Amino acid sequence: MLDWQAVYATRASRMKASEIRELLKLLDQPDIISFAGGIPDPALFPKEAFRAAYTDVLTGSTANAALQYSVSEGYLPLREWLVEQMGAIGIACRPENIMIVSGSQQGLDYLGKLFLSPGDTALVTRPTYLGALQAFNAYEPNYDQLAINGNRTPQSYADNAASNGGRAKFAYVTADFGNPSGETMTLAERERLLDLATELDMPVLEDGAYQSLRYDGEAIPPILALDLARNGGEIDATRTIYSGSFSKTLAPGLRTGWLCASEAVISKLVLMKQAADLHSSTINQMAIHHVATHGFAAQVEKIRVAYRERRDLLLSALARHMPAGVEWTKPEGGMFIWVTLPESIDSAALLAEAVKTVRIAFVPGQAFHADGTGANTLRLSFSCASAQGIEEGMLRLGNLIRKTLGT
Amino acid sequence: MLDWQAVYATRASRMKASEIRELLKLLDQPDIISFAGGIPDPALFPKEAFRAAYTDVLTGSTANAALQYSVSEGYLPLREWLVEQMGAIGIACRPENIMIVSGSQQGLDYLGKLFLSPGDTALVTRPTYLGALQAFNAYEPNYDQLAINGNRTPQSYADNAASNGGRAKFAYVTADFGNPSGETMTLAERERLLDLATELDMPVLEDGAYQSLRYDGEAIPPILALDLARNGGEIDATRTIYSGSFSKTLAPGLRTGWLCASEAVISKLVLMKQAADLHSSTINQMAIHHVATHGFAAQVEKIRVAYRERRDLLLSALARHMPAGVEWTKPEGGMFIWVTLPESIDSAALLAEAVKTVRIAFVPGQAFHADGTGANTLRLSFSCASAQGIEEGMLRLGNLIRKTLGT
Repeated sequence: MLDWQAVYATRASRMKASEIRELLKLLDQPDIISFAGGIPDPALFPKEAFRAAYTDVLTGSTANAALQYSVSEGYLPLREWLVEQMGAIGIACRPENIMIVSGSQQGLDYLGKLFLSPGDTALVTRPTYLGALQAFNAYEPNYDQLAINGNRTPQSYADNAASNGGRAKFAYVTADFGNPSGETMTLAERERLLDLATELDMPVLEDGAYQSLRYDGEAIPPILALDLARNGGEIDATRTIYSGSFSKTLAPGLRTGWLCASEAVISKLVLMKQAADLHSSTINQMAIHHVATHGFAAQVEKIRVAYRERRDLLLSALARHMPAGVEWTKPEGGMFIWVTLPESIDSAALLAEAVKTVRIAFVPGQAFHADGTGANTLRLSFSCASAQGIEEGMLRLGNLIRKTLGT
Repeated sequence: MLDWQAVYATRASRMKASEIRELLKLLDQPDIISFAGGIPDPALFPKEAFRAAYTDVLTGSTANAALQYSVSEGYLPLREWLVEQMGAIGIACRPENIMIVSGSQQGLDYLGKLFLSPGDTALVTRPTYLGALQAFNAYEPNYDQLAINGNRTPQSYADNAASNGGRAKFAYVTADFGNPSGETMTLAERERLLDLATELDMPVLEDGAYQSLRYDGEAIPPILALDLARNGGEIDATRTIYSGSFSKTLAPGLRTGWLCASEAVISKLVLMKQAADLHSSTINQMAIHHVATHGFAAQVEKIRVAYRERRDLLLSALARHMPAGVEWTKPEGGMFIWVTLPESIDSAALLAEAVKTVRIAFVPGQAFHADGTGANTLRLSFSCASAQGIEEGMLRLGNLIRKTLGT
């Protein structure tokens, strides 16, 4: 089955509809070595744990509740468990600071709905998560490029937003191992972003989808933890909204994620959710809670070990097979490596050629750029790659790039 | 646990926040005889069937797919099964005409998002489904009262909408056993609504949440079936969007419903869903499909038998205990009876008195009225009521109304 991010990115490219249809057909063929998927490896899903969880919650006194309507803010025991998890990464909070959403994508949609009106500006990095752009696009914002290295003045953001008839309403970032770049914001960059947000009096949306998938290096406090430290540990005084996901650690098919923020923000989002879909699936929240309390740490460690090895293999294969002039990120976690090709190469055209001739796939990078740049970039996912596929795939990609460059 | 519709209705009333908090606390007490719930009876949930379904889909070759990301339009076998179901009620369609949503409330939210801009007008009956008003409110429409008896000219709707700076964007109705009134639109009313929609060139949103819960009388074709007949059986030429729900037949806790409409409308909604939450829970769609294909008709019949008996008991108790001047609907299906009190009684005040003194609960009717009228109406739900509770509850309500009237 095709990865939705690959479909997204291809649809968002400048190819003709007929070319896109053709390409998507090719991408779905079984002999393609694919680095396109942004999906977790299904071989790592805790299937037995989920089977036990659904059986348990559907047995005895919990069965009626599992199948019934429930509250919009989410299943209280799951929110209480998340309070502990957030506490462990430096975010002291209460259940009132947590709302369950139907996947973190829904959280992004709600945040767009809450903050954006047509003409407002959202600050995003270049590149940024494609799904966030898709969620925000529904509310017709302008985008301005967030310079996380700090080489822009707060006033320059305000001026750009005003010239588009609105205000900068939030900055959206993935602080750890972002999709697509795999890169991590430094402590200084996180603090600087909070300075900027304070200056512009806007929230920071912190996407923590990959936060627990660190393979090496020292953990850096989440932006919300730094925000808390600035506010005497009082979460209700913070401006950061943290978005969490079970899709990369347990399974995406249950569509269960969460938002953590001040009670004022969460209360508004709960009313919004009540009107939009009443609540997230009761039984899935209970199943997630069951699996999480029966061995979350061990499950995360299993994924870390597997993905760390694949990342190392991909980095090593890139080093051996890429020609001069090709650069890539060295992520400390997550699922992605981001490749920058020489300026002369269009990665969408390269993909079309790659699937036709050398039978490999990746995601062209342009769609991850709110400003339409990045035609010479591409995303490689290592989450579902085999050792053999990585070696063979990078050999083929390196040769194809050489051929395209005429070297 | 408190029923969300009771919470909604109470919040939407004109009571003070402190009074609402007090009332909600009282409503949740175990000795209250409640007719407030709009929830299905959990004793009728097919628990064993769901336990078997989750075990089966999490075993063998389907387990990976059940836990993985999937397509925004929904699980194809479930959509194919729904094609048959829709065909059986006169709606010939293809899988391309069906999108799975996370409960029909989400469908209503998406339809509001698709059709409404601030200043537009939505046509709704008086009373109408409270959840629909909540979903549409996010898009800031005006409401005009849809006269299903046809005693208003098409031009009068257009004029009202224009005077509010927009157009009439759709008519929203529940044709069968609507929440809260329990009433059914006649064949002539359905045809007249299609005439009106054609005249105003707008879609009809047909909420079929209770469609399969008919206890007596002859089934009337859904509006979409009549629309199809006008268009030579070609669904892609119709203007009606049908919203379906598994919440009243299988279980609400899985948050699984569907929309059925022309492929042009469904395609737009699929793109909207992709940006808003990627897709509905994969495993829940597979579990619903499993339970549905292993005995949907028998499950629906079980519910019909139980609810028919409760409706009959409630109608009989009303006839015996209500004083003169109180009127109520005689629904042929669904979960609700709608009561109209003498003009002098405010049902919100009556509820406050009822929970304090005679320990019974119902939902005050005003919140179901987009125009703020209906203070002398109330909704009784019989879905979770026992024979003893019905008899005792109506005796107490009748006496309280007599006392309030001073008779």
